[in-house]
Amino acid sequence: MSAEFSTLAAFQSLLAQAPGVDQQAMGEAEARNGQLTKPPGALGRLEDMAIWYAGWRGNPRPSIKAPQVIIFAGNHGVTAQGVSAFPAEVTEQMVLNFQHGGAAINQLSRAAGADLDVIALDLDTPTADFTQGPAMSEAEVVAALQAGWSAVKEGTDLLVVGEMGIGNTTSGAAISHALFGGTSEDWVGRGTGVDDAGLANKARVVREGVAANGTPKGLEALRCLGGRELAGMVGAIARARSLRIPVILDGFIASAAAATLADAQDGALDHVISGHVSAEAAHGAVLARLGKEPILSLNMRLGEGSGAAVAINILKAAVVCHSGMATFAEAGVTDG
Amino acid sequence: MSAEFSTLAAFQSLLAQAPGVDQQAMGEAEARNGQLTKPPGALGRLEDMAIWYAGWRGNPRPSIKAPQVIIFAGNHGVTAQGVSAFPAEVTEQMVLNFQHGGAAINQLSRAAGADLDVIALDLDTPTADFTQGPAMSEAEVVAALQAGWSAVKEGTDLLVVGEMGIGNTTSGAAISHALFGGTSEDWVGRGTGVDDAGLANKARVVREGVAANGTPKGLEALRCLGGRELAGMVGAIARARSLRIPVILDGFIASAAAATLADAQDGALDHVISGHVSAEAAHGAVLARLGKEPILSLNMRLGEGSGAAVAINILKAAVVCHSGMATFAEAGVTDG
Repeated sequence: MSAEFSTLAAFQSLLAQAPGVDQQAMGEAEARNGQLTKPPGALGRLEDMAIWYAGWRGNPRPSIKAPQVIIFAGNHGVTAQGVSAFPAEVTEQMVLNFQHGGAAINQLSRAAGADLDVIALDLDTPTADFTQGPAMSEAEVVAALQAGWSAVKEGTDLLVVGEMGIGNTTSGAAISHALFGGTSEDWVGRGTGVDDAGLANKARVVREGVAANGTPKGLEALRCLGGRELAGMVGAIARARSLRIPVILDGFIASAAAATLADAQDGALDHVISGHVSAEAAHGAVLARLGKEPILSLNMRLGEGSGAAVAINILKAAVVCHSGMATFAEAGVTDG
Repeated sequence: MSAEFSTLAAFQSLLAQAPGVDQQAMGEAEARNGQLTKPPGALGRLEDMAIWYAGWRGNPRPSIKAPQVIIFAGNHGVTAQGVSAFPAEVTEQMVLNFQHGGAAINQLSRAAGADLDVIALDLDTPTADFTQGPAMSEAEVVAALQAGWSAVKEGTDLLVVGEMGIGNTTSGAAISHALFGGTSEDWVGRGTGVDDAGLANKARVVREGVAANGTPKGLEALRCLGGRELAGMVGAIARARSLRIPVILDGFIASAAAATLADAQDGALDHVISGHVSAEAAHGAVLARLGKEPILSLNMRLGEGSGAAVAINILKAAVVCHSGMATFAEAGVTDG
């Protein structure tokens, strides 16, 4: 479907009109959970996840049949500042790898029973180097938001968004620094593998970028410091909300992108859970600011939606228990 | 197949003859891992798990096609001491629930693509109350070990063992206290939900049981303080080793049972990883003693193999990435 906005202001007002969780379905799911053949709370976080999922789907006994993983790819002008261990052409090479089925996310999507869509966003036109001014014009960021919005299939019942973009941990760090303060050093990490000098350089670039753009907030942080693939993820997360599709958040860059949405509109990530905490140094701090507790902690730091795709399996496990288990009465088991 | 031992001493010597990991396959898997289209180490723990799995299967590019979950059930004479919030008949009721497909483990096994086998071990004959002497005779513990040994299918390529047995967290605590020392309070938890008085009672029962049996070690701890379902798990873990089938360990009781094996023979759990750390208070401490880092931490405390069954999905994710991803050369991606 085509996007329903053509300016940042229009996108912002769509956020304000987004639907909330279905409280009745959630209450019914909670009641069902209390009757299942297990001691109260014995499935731990799986119980919370199933009830949350039921609430967003508006169905006290839901199933997950059509997960969708969307990877957005974009190129970053800030790579001119030498922030990545890999050259910028790797973005496009990896898009081809996604299309040919050779990347981690291809294997993980298939294993989780998810459809995978790959959306390359103007790879020939990198964003501007944000140490010199905004990374994107309003038209550019809106186009990327629209691409994300339109990429979500209406039949999807669980969404993962991921990214590929050489240089984009620097973008995630700059957004985090702009939104959450601290020093630029607090938010930079080794990304795909820069050394100590590279890390110091990233901190300089982040500091200069945030200053050059006047410490932008909300969707302006996305426009000025983000990248097309970050905006694509934001557009998809917002579209999922309008369709009441729960979202599993991936790593540092996806979380920084999502943080601009939370900053733009209170509660804009209520339909989102964190799939994992990555090894990228600042990811845990971003999740803490977002109030999201990660499902997995496996020292992953690949991006591509990979950590969230692994977490699909956990949410599926939660939901099949919730919807498939017998109640004490059905099974004739004595309730302690 | 029938078991190859008829005494505890014979079982012990089988342990000493168990095969080790295939170092060549593991080395080849490690080399392959270094060529896959991702920054080095970016899949974190998934990479370690895949290489470990490849080593045990003797195949540098393995797949997981036939996981098996086996639940052993047993009854415990120590329930006479009032250690559980649920009555003992729930063991049998839950076995029926497993057989009818209504329990959590039924849903989780199906979701993980695993076969589920349920083995009820002499439910009409509870073990003896271990505060009065050994829970089992040698013949009894050997019969349960044999049942576990024989339950592992030769075509299985990944094993999860789980348990059901009202009263068995007390058994797990007594084994842990006997093997690892400390005070009995260090090892007792709320199980399926006892209150503070119940917890103090469990600590008394554990203390008295360990003293009444002279602080037994190794397989004697299993015989004197364990239960039939714990011995069944031990027999199955040992059989898996003889077939080089990797095992994912479940919760506190499974881990305490496995600890008797590790205490009986150095390295007896090298083919075993920990699927999760449960909410049962002492589980983390047992895993630390075993040197096992759990894959998941989801506050689960159900038993039934449930946490390990969820972790099957993570190991599968690791293996599909390892075996399915393209190398840098295959994909034409520039290796940073």
